[in-house]
Amino acid sequence: MTTLDRGALRARLEDLYYAYADAIDEDLERWPDFFTEDALYKIVARENFDRGLPLASMLCEGRGMILDRVMGVKQTIVHFKRVMRHQFANIRVTYAGAEGIRARSTFVVYDTFEAATTRLFAVGRSFDHLVEIDGELRFRERICVFDGDLVQGSIIYPF
Amino acid sequence: MTTLDRGALRARLEDLYYAYADAIDEDLERWPDFFTEDALYKIVARENFDRGLPLASMLCEGRGMILDRVMGVKQTIVHFKRVMRHQFANIRVTYAGAEGIRARSTFVVYDTFEAATTRLFAVGRSFDHLVEIDGELRFRERICVFDGDLVQGSIIYPF
Amino acid sequence: MTTLDRGALRARLEDLYYAYADAIDEDLERWPDFFTEDALYKIVARENFDRGLPLASMLCEGRGMILDRVMGVKQTIVHFKRVMRHQFANIRVTYAGAEGIRARSTFVVYDTFEAATTRLFAVGRSFDHLVEIDGELRFRERICVFDGDLVQGSIIYPF
Repeated sequence: MTTLDRGALRARLEDLYYAYADAIDEDLERWPDFFTEDALYKIVARENFDRGLPLASMLCEGRGMILDRVMGVKQTIVHFKRVMRHQFANIRVTYAGAEGIRARSTFVVYDTFEAATTRLFAVGRSFDHLVEIDGELRFRERICVFDGDLVQGSIIYPF
Repeated sequence: MTTLDRGALRARLEDLYYAYADAIDEDLERWPDFFTEDALYKIVARENFDRGLPLASMLCEGRGMILDRVMGVKQTIVHFKRVMRHQFANIRVTYAGAEGIRARSTFVVYDTFEAATTRLFAVGRSFDHLVEIDGELRFRERICVFDGDLVQGSIIYPF
Repeated sequence: MTTLDRGALRARLEDLYYAYADAIDEDLERWPDFFTEDALYKIVARENFDRGLPLASMLCEGRGMILDRVMGVKQTIVHFKRVMRHQFANIRVTYAGAEGIRARSTFVVYDTFEAATTRLFAVGRSFDHLVEIDGELRFRERICVFDGDLVQGSIIYPF
């Protein structure tokens, strides 16, 4: 690709990631729309990822499980007020061709409880595979690897 | 807009937001230059924003009030050393047309006091309306909504 | 430059900074590849930077010293597990011409120790001078200025 094409693709991906962040932070019900029917979504601790262990903190095989997850989160958060804020940075295309797009990003997530100051929740990387469906980019695979082996509280929110 | 146009507009907006961050962090006197004469600048707690309450943590109607604010901050910070660092991320254009540009961003702000390590100060979103004046983009409206209902210390610095 | 050129250059720089972040976080041995033979690499506390003091927390004159630094870090980290995560943001070109490219960025660095949650490590700005060598951009000078006058623990990792 030329520098210009790379720039245009980057801009398009950034639009997607930022809209994705907005969806999970502001209206989780829009989260599943970003995935293909057969999508794999996974959250893994770096510790396990580096060792190649199959343990996942969250695993969704197919959009049906992603939809279930939305219900699970909504039932949990009814008990307390918690605002999430996802920031995606360092977005890089590592492959663009016949099989779609492979990209990586860094995520930084903050959460804020009622009457408390904002704190850093988790930091990590995502390894993503995207495909174009009806002119829209969708995640076919999204593996989120958070640094360390634990996060503050349990992971119920997606990255 | 085509993908290419969107990319070019994004690049232009990013240049503006990053220059804006540099101004408020390094030389607050340049901050008012980023606004139109009739600009509205507002900082609101998410709690109040979501409920539609009119309470604002900071409210400037017109560039005159923004200039006043600069004086206020400079008088306050003379008493202690505090370095601010603003990071703008997830910049997204939500409208570009006859009425100018509407954009959103995520802000993450850090502060550092003398002889202390850096801490997270606040996280939130901005809802912005920009117009072009003599070839330069200026904020006509900038609403900053920080997550939660309080920040560390009081808000005297703009976002 | 036109808006389009600026966007393309920004995209190219972002690719470089994000690859750089990936190198120092995931495989420090690739870090020296980003510099010219005669590169100057420096980490300075803002306190000293603002006063024009020559004190540096890290100083490498030439790629040879940068290579030495890699060895130093590798010997230190063998004793404990620590994961670094660098995020580069607010990347801005301040000059592009016959002498190469001058750019600035904001860095935010997190670290995670074994069995501990991730914490904010340092925040600051970089002042960079890049040149093109055989079609690749390389740092001829990279000055990293972290906010405040101390960081958590000592600085052994580069920014």
